Amino acid sequence: MTRSAPGADLGLHRVLEPAGVLPQAAWRLDPDPRLAADEVRVDIECLNLDAASYRQLSERHGGDGAAVRAEVCAIVAARGKMHNPVTGSGGMLIGTVAESGPESPLGLRPGDRVATLVSLTLTPLEITDGLRGWDGLGERVPARGHAILFGRSIAAVLPPDLPDELALSVLDVCGAPALTARQVAELPGPAPTVLVLGAAGKSGSLSLAAARRAGAGRLIGVVPTLAEEQALTRSGLADLVLRADARDAVRLAALLEQHGGPADLTVVCTDVPGCEHSAVLATRDGGRVVFFSMATSFPAAALGAEGLARDVTMLIGNGYQPGHADHALDLIRQEPGVRALFDRRLRTESSGGAR
Amino acid sequence: MTRSAPGADLGLHRVLEPAGVLPQAAWRLDPDPRLAADEVRVDIECLNLDAASYRQLSERHGGDGAAVRAEVCAIVAARGKMHNPVTGSGGMLIGTVAESGPESPLGLRPGDRVATLVSLTLTPLEITDGLRGWDGLGERVPARGHAILFGRSIAAVLPPDLPDELALSVLDVCGAPALTARQVAELPGPAPTVLVLGAAGKSGSLSLAAARRAGAGRLIGVVPTLAEEQALTRSGLADLVLRADARDAVRLAALLEQHGGPADLTVVCTDVPGCEHSAVLATRDGGRVVFFSMATSFPAAALGAEGLARDVTMLIGNGYQPGHADHALDLIRQEPGVRALFDRRLRTESSGGAR
Repeated sequence: MTRSAPGADLGLHRVLEPAGVLPQAAWRLDPDPRLAADEVRVDIECLNLDAASYRQLSERHGGDGAAVRAEVCAIVAARGKMHNPVTGSGGMLIGTVAESGPESPLGLRPGDRVATLVSLTLTPLEITDGLRGWDGLGERVPARGHAILFGRSIAAVLPPDLPDELALSVLDVCGAPALTARQVAELPGPAPTVLVLGAAGKSGSLSLAAARRAGAGRLIGVVPTLAEEQALTRSGLADLVLRADARDAVRLAALLEQHGGPADLTVVCTDVPGCEHSAVLATRDGGRVVFFSMATSFPAAALGAEGLARDVTMLIGNGYQPGHADHALDLIRQEPGVRALFDRRLRTESSGGAR
Repeated sequence: MTRSAPGADLGLHRVLEPAGVLPQAAWRLDPDPRLAADEVRVDIECLNLDAASYRQLSERHGGDGAAVRAEVCAIVAARGKMHNPVTGSGGMLIGTVAESGPESPLGLRPGDRVATLVSLTLTPLEITDGLRGWDGLGERVPARGHAILFGRSIAAVLPPDLPDELALSVLDVCGAPALTARQVAELPGPAPTVLVLGAAGKSGSLSLAAARRAGAGRLIGVVPTLAEEQALTRSGLADLVLRADARDAVRLAALLEQHGGPADLTVVCTDVPGCEHSAVLATRDGGRVVFFSMATSFPAAALGAEGLARDVTMLIGNGYQPGHADHALDLIRQEPGVRALFDRRLRTESSGGAR
């Protein structure tokens, strides 16, 4: 296979059906191990199924691990990618670079141990071991086979100094601190006040640390429970920790009124729906809101700001920014407060996450 | 009634149940005609039900106008606002200012003929004529009664020089040209290339004209049909008109490649779902996308940009910006190309619109 001109870096030449769509929209991809000039082949170590996909498969088969395993094998064989046709979601994978095409812009070398930061729903994949190393009872799927990265795919070399599980959970949300830092830097005026909803979570704690480094002034973190209030306070990441229901726009605005008024920038990192109006009302006229929560409703945000006559700039959290992975890994290494919150979360939760 | 302190300008004191939520989220509002110091009372001339709400009511009653009328009366009596409990939507109203509280910031005077620019779902309303002037067979509802505007409500004085229907259809989308103009002005570098998807529509044509005035360079309009291609070409609003399916990301990107490459700013004004990836792929790295289409999917946009590794800033189109109504009305007055497209649309379509 050689490089075909337009769209090669997006993997268009790997789309088998329907022809002409993007790999994520395709029903079936071609996982041929022979590389185009800008592609990379990765020998798979394990897949991390996204939580929604695994739950659907497990429930469908009543927790029968062998049946779940058979269905994952069947999906990958039929589609050339691990794209759950019911949930529409995928996950990510860990592996080792086997071959890097001469024109690949990813900077990867054979032997590099990497995690993919683009969804499995657009990653050509072939499994060769029938997943016999997996009991079908969890989201982490040891596997043999290979995957293909395109010129525009994103992968991060796994850092040798961090546990895999920790690195993966940082990489899963690394777009949030990168975009937060950029927004803080772009806001006019010195030392803006930054409010983070869902501040003790993965993207929330990284965003607080990123905001501080980017020159934010006062940092306010909102959390839903006493346990998270205590953990966030101990972390030292926020100047003020408020325990409140992030869906209760009126109460949150009143609380902020008692503590210096609305924020210049509000970052929404909650995992519950219904925080759009709270975020708008918590932000001053002329300020910005960044929505990272995948539970965000586009119409609720658009109509909410209009209904509240609030002149705020609202951003959809883009999960990609150049350098985002290294930036987030630096934060987890250098900010003990962030590390403590991640460690606490990894102890108490299943892996979750990958979108 | 006198002014009660926090949240009065949002109408919190008008919420009867459940207590403490914002008026839009409330089940029932208090339409008491006595005003707080910053409120305005409007004598109603007619309601414009939003299209989705009217369609639901009409279909439910099999087109029986008397039954539709009775249900609208019942909803307003029960809720103190015209908030369709099935669709969750409202509409807007036209009326004449009857009284303006001494502390109202809206600048309205008794006798001003106004259109409300906030949704009926948050506007206290009382109807006194049983809607007997309405046959229940259209979205435009002649009515007697009154409505209350809060300090933060938005209303526009209807211009005497434009037909009501034209002014309303401009005001319905007036957030789009205002935000487009701001984005063009904020982009670094001179004369940015601006791409508008759905360019012959109401928000699309206004956005093209606004972009030109704000200093845009090349303007590209994408439309779905030959008729719209001809109409937009005749209008002179765009430097280049492309006929393409705005959902076909790959073909659109290839077309742009033939015509100078991706845009600095892409404005999404289509009314069909599935344009998120097209918009991202049509925009250069470092560029911006503004989503005005209410058919936008938040996850499709967020994951699309990530999956395409495209570093674009994506904005949720806020329907409010100070001065947005006057800005849009100026465009329709002074830009014959915009006026021609609106007139064409008003001739061929029902009223539609109000969100």
